[in-house]
Amino acid sequence: MIVVLKPGLTVDEVRKVVDRVEGLGLKAHISVGKERTIIGAIGDERLLADQTLESFPGVEKVVPILKPYKLVSRDFQRENTIIRVAGHEIGGKRIHVMAGPCSVESYEQVLAAAVPVKEAGATFMRGGAFKPRTSPYTFQGLGEEGLEVLARAREATHLPIITEVLDPRDLDLVYRYTDILQIGARNMQNFKLLTEVGRLKKPVLLKRGLSATIQEFLLSAEYIAAEGNRQIILCERGIRTYETETRNTLDLSAVPVLKQLSHLPVFVDPSHGTGRWDLVTPMALAGIAAGADGLLIEVHPRPERALSDGPQSLKPEKFAGLMKDLKKVAEAVGREL
Amino acid sequence: MIVVLKPGLTVDEVRKVVDRVEGLGLKAHISVGKERTIIGAIGDERLLADQTLESFPGVEKVVPILKPYKLVSRDFQRENTIIRVAGHEIGGKRIHVMAGPCSVESYEQVLAAAVPVKEAGATFMRGGAFKPRTSPYTFQGLGEEGLEVLARAREATHLPIITEVLDPRDLDLVYRYTDILQIGARNMQNFKLLTEVGRLKKPVLLKRGLSATIQEFLLSAEYIAAEGNRQIILCERGIRTYETETRNTLDLSAVPVLKQLSHLPVFVDPSHGTGRWDLVTPMALAGIAAGADGLLIEVHPRPERALSDGPQSLKPEKFAGLMKDLKKVAEAVGREL
Amino acid sequence: MIVVLKPGLTVDEVRKVVDRVEGLGLKAHISVGKERTIIGAIGDERLLADQTLESFPGVEKVVPILKPYKLVSRDFQRENTIIRVAGHEIGGKRIHVMAGPCSVESYEQVLAAAVPVKEAGATFMRGGAFKPRTSPYTFQGLGEEGLEVLARAREATHLPIITEVLDPRDLDLVYRYTDILQIGARNMQNFKLLTEVGRLKKPVLLKRGLSATIQEFLLSAEYIAAEGNRQIILCERGIRTYETETRNTLDLSAVPVLKQLSHLPVFVDPSHGTGRWDLVTPMALAGIAAGADGLLIEVHPRPERALSDGPQSLKPEKFAGLMKDLKKVAEAVGREL
Amino acid sequence: MIVVLKPGLTVDEVRKVVDRVEGLGLKAHISVGKERTIIGAIGDERLLADQTLESFPGVEKVVPILKPYKLVSRDFQRENTIIRVAGHEIGGKRIHVMAGPCSVESYEQVLAAAVPVKEAGATFMRGGAFKPRTSPYTFQGLGEEGLEVLARAREATHLPIITEVLDPRDLDLVYRYTDILQIGARNMQNFKLLTEVGRLKKPVLLKRGLSATIQEFLLSAEYIAAEGNRQIILCERGIRTYETETRNTLDLSAVPVLKQLSHLPVFVDPSHGTGRWDLVTPMALAGIAAGADGLLIEVHPRPERALSDGPQSLKPEKFAGLMKDLKKVAEAVGREL
Repeated sequence: MIVVLKPGLTVDEVRKVVDRVEGLGLKAHISVGKERTIIGAIGDERLLADQTLESFPGVEKVVPILKPYKLVSRDFQRENTIIRVAGHEIGGKRIHVMAGPCSVESYEQVLAAAVPVKEAGATFMRGGAFKPRTSPYTFQGLGEEGLEVLARAREATHLPIITEVLDPRDLDLVYRYTDILQIGARNMQNFKLLTEVGRLKKPVLLKRGLSATIQEFLLSAEYIAAEGNRQIILCERGIRTYETETRNTLDLSAVPVLKQLSHLPVFVDPSHGTGRWDLVTPMALAGIAAGADGLLIEVHPRPERALSDGPQSLKPEKFAGLMKDLKKVAEAVGREL
Repeated sequence: MIVVLKPGLTVDEVRKVVDRVEGLGLKAHISVGKERTIIGAIGDERLLADQTLESFPGVEKVVPILKPYKLVSRDFQRENTIIRVAGHEIGGKRIHVMAGPCSVESYEQVLAAAVPVKEAGATFMRGGAFKPRTSPYTFQGLGEEGLEVLARAREATHLPIITEVLDPRDLDLVYRYTDILQIGARNMQNFKLLTEVGRLKKPVLLKRGLSATIQEFLLSAEYIAAEGNRQIILCERGIRTYETETRNTLDLSAVPVLKQLSHLPVFVDPSHGTGRWDLVTPMALAGIAAGADGLLIEVHPRPERALSDGPQSLKPEKFAGLMKDLKKVAEAVGREL
Repeated sequence: MIVVLKPGLTVDEVRKVVDRVEGLGLKAHISVGKERTIIGAIGDERLLADQTLESFPGVEKVVPILKPYKLVSRDFQRENTIIRVAGHEIGGKRIHVMAGPCSVESYEQVLAAAVPVKEAGATFMRGGAFKPRTSPYTFQGLGEEGLEVLARAREATHLPIITEVLDPRDLDLVYRYTDILQIGARNMQNFKLLTEVGRLKKPVLLKRGLSATIQEFLLSAEYIAAEGNRQIILCERGIRTYETETRNTLDLSAVPVLKQLSHLPVFVDPSHGTGRWDLVTPMALAGIAAGADGLLIEVHPRPERALSDGPQSLKPEKFAGLMKDLKKVAEAVGREL
Repeated sequence: MIVVLKPGLTVDEVRKVVDRVEGLGLKAHISVGKERTIIGAIGDERLLADQTLESFPGVEKVVPILKPYKLVSRDFQRENTIIRVAGHEIGGKRIHVMAGPCSVESYEQVLAAAVPVKEAGATFMRGGAFKPRTSPYTFQGLGEEGLEVLARAREATHLPIITEVLDPRDLDLVYRYTDILQIGARNMQNFKLLTEVGRLKKPVLLKRGLSATIQEFLLSAEYIAAEGNRQIILCERGIRTYETETRNTLDLSAVPVLKQLSHLPVFVDPSHGTGRWDLVTPMALAGIAAGADGLLIEVHPRPERALSDGPQSLKPEKFAGLMKDLKKVAEAVGREL
């Protein structure tokens, strides 16, 4: 890291900063400029609380040089991580689409979504049994009953399941039912939950928080990886901006940035990313064109009756159209569906 | 709520929307304009998933009229909530300042902060035993040992404690030690945790999420209130914006807005709100001038050695200066310290 | 518009609001609910200052129903606007790519960019003679000399020109040289400049402001259209968010939203939108997949020597690669290049 | 500045970067770390396009060390700038309040605001003759007629004038009438206009742009100062965030940050900063508590009839109440009114 000193320090004061830098196990390199003196602090700065030097007397600011994450970084592993689950490879040439309703409402509803999405080419079925809802007065999910519905639908369709876990106390339960664990945007910095799923042996799809920087997102993935679980899928799902035409602003530039900084597969969720079903298809195509490895898409047999997220859910027939368009775009960028 | 219809609908299509509105238990009122027809849907819209009508065929958009929260709103309770805890009244004429280190590091450290902050006029002692940290490689808190340190410091100083709980599994433990439970910004939408503290009989200080709207903030408070616990303190602690001179942007206009919309006490945390100790005093004064009922301030005996948040921690002597200035500003706005 | 009244008004007070609504030339429709009374105000609300009723006694809030823009809206004109300029059609099936250096530095530099971009399939040449620069100490553009360089390069390559105008006093000059006038992001709300270009008979490419909502963007286009010039290209170029990995956040969902709300052609500028040359290709492909009608791309023969925006400029050979990939994606979404 | 090199460069490649750094007139200092090599580039980096090195082969990133502005910085001038205008001193111990209507509508209207605000203690009268309006269909200001109204009101009340200039072509005209020139938020990066007012001999109040960083704000002030005019007042007026309860988010932490980085006086505009008259008083008090040197406040004799910004305008009697409260807060922080 670079330590920029305040102007006008005495040699003694500079010495004290140098001593502190070296006391932290780093090597100090001084450059004296006309307006500012800087100290290059060489060593593994990741192990320091990044702010520890910033409040030292005489220090104006501290500029980190190394990325604070390691295991999930491209510097640490050059080749792409491929996740093998339920007979599929995620992160390879093939694009994967995970589709289904926002909330599990009934077996009939899940099946009415799952059968046609499979037919259209989806390889995983999504559906929420535990729902994080902004208002306490809205539908909170069916809980374990919802997980059972998903399991029955898997039996019927042979589509593996991805479903969200909210609470560390539900982890065993959800683990028993699902193929991929989902950590939602609101839990991206629920570090206890991250640590727990890091100890499991199932793939985790981690959604970017509503206002998470890409660095924070990768640090959250690092929490999982640091516990041993390296089967992590990163999912961009829209960030919060001032724009109100869309529910969130889908940050597609995060896709190539994440692919550059990390070896992990990157997905896009255009349903939550826009909040509007009529924007799902263009943004799904754009996500794949930007280099994503897969998509998470909400499909509901009757969006106008959905207990959550109706406005952003596609009807099965719209979804089938999307998949046809997607196939062409995937091939145009050298992928397959 | 107001349902705006798409242009060019047939009478029959309008009829179907009206039927749907009435099927949801609301009364429909139609106004036909030249460019758009609108339906006023009268009744308790809070009980509906707010989006349920938005995906109905023929509907262009839905505009809610009522606030989605109820128990925490000024409409529901006109007079201010006063919270009585450890012999103090929070939300009344007197301003309360809760001060202490970000993390509990040792008994000596806590005492070296607690003794002088009490002397300077602080009425509660803050300190974190469980720390949510962005990086897995930084200090995560002392856990139960930290809680014991706080308890011993309370015995020594008679300052009641406020400390954060992160995980529903730690709730019993933290409950036994603390006087006020803190829910941090990253857990503002950890709805399971909100529900659990809603069942307890201790005051809760709820911090606004990094990118939470005021409406979402109040809905999170509503989660707690809906379970029975009405002793809630709202705390503005900075929101995420594009500005990089400060760690967050302290949104002081949230103070009068919250006081208007809700009957709950409102605090300000200028330490996290700015991330810089040199901005804590002006922003603390400004927070009280804006109408806040109290402050949460980080004080550390040796900020340059702090295991977390050193750059935003005041030394005890600076804190004493702040309290002197604060007294004058509090009196200028008709409060006391 | 909908006027929501405060609770507890007397009939007389409601009457006064109704009179005010009708005094503004609107028809009032009253719906009395249990918690709130609302007035539907029917008529052309666009002609009102949108806030005029909001400060009327007894009014809680005012919700507009109609979009505040008209001429540029899809409601006003169903079919897409096609702009014919220099033998090209913008807004039709064919994608147009406008490429060249950020700043005009010399004839040699412009030519060294223009010749290869034309060869690769670009149909317009971009280059700035007047540069809006954040710092007064950096290169401000060659002014008229730059325009002459562009004109000579057009003669040599037969590529029509797009260049920015900053100051109403330069408008005649720029008009004489350019084929398309560009209004930059920083001038999106320079209403005097918008009014002036609205009186000209040349196409205008209008960039979205750094923090402009889509509604404000369309209102700025409306300023141009209201003066008579309907040849407007809208260009998304990144908005300001908290993310720092990219210079701006390219809001690609703005593309389908704009295509839906307006009949005007929509372009994307992935160079400014990301600020990094290594993200230009994926985001260019994504932009076209999202439905854009064209792209604005910075190309410089020697980015490391560029007087402005080097980090986001492609070398000509990279640009040629981009165009090959783009052709495939364009065809995949039913367009041609 | 610090130049961070990509990992794995050859000595020769490092040499080329060093040559480039020295070719730009800077001295290079190399520090070789285990994971990254960095070059300290010592000299006046302000004179470089800040990005020029970032696109050089082998360079990973460039971190500036010096602030890019100079004349307006506290480094350049330690003591506060005091602006003397119309018998007043701005930037000294005394707080100045500039009050009046958003738009000049008529002589009667201006006088009905100016007389009571003077009586209540305002020292300048504000009022817009040229109005930047988001929609082309709303009131655009009276132009020169409005300036004459202001001049007559100054004669009657002896309150000096502050009014906005939008277009460089109106500068001579506005200059003749006003005491202080205002550059609005939308023109903060209208560099041509900044350059022109930089050549004048009258004080300029520069508003922060809606999404301007503090650094960009100071660079815009530097544009004015670089032309010779050092009589600049900086004005915080709210930035754009995702929050919708307020029109903008008033960033009061900008006040102490600006006072620290710059020697210029800092004002706050709580009217635009919140967009709501009922928040003006608390935020005005908070602004002064945070260290501001003055306020800009909208006052209208009949806000419900205002042609612009009615919802954020105070009635004269409310303004008088604000001034009484303000006097106490000003004294509490060692200022006077």
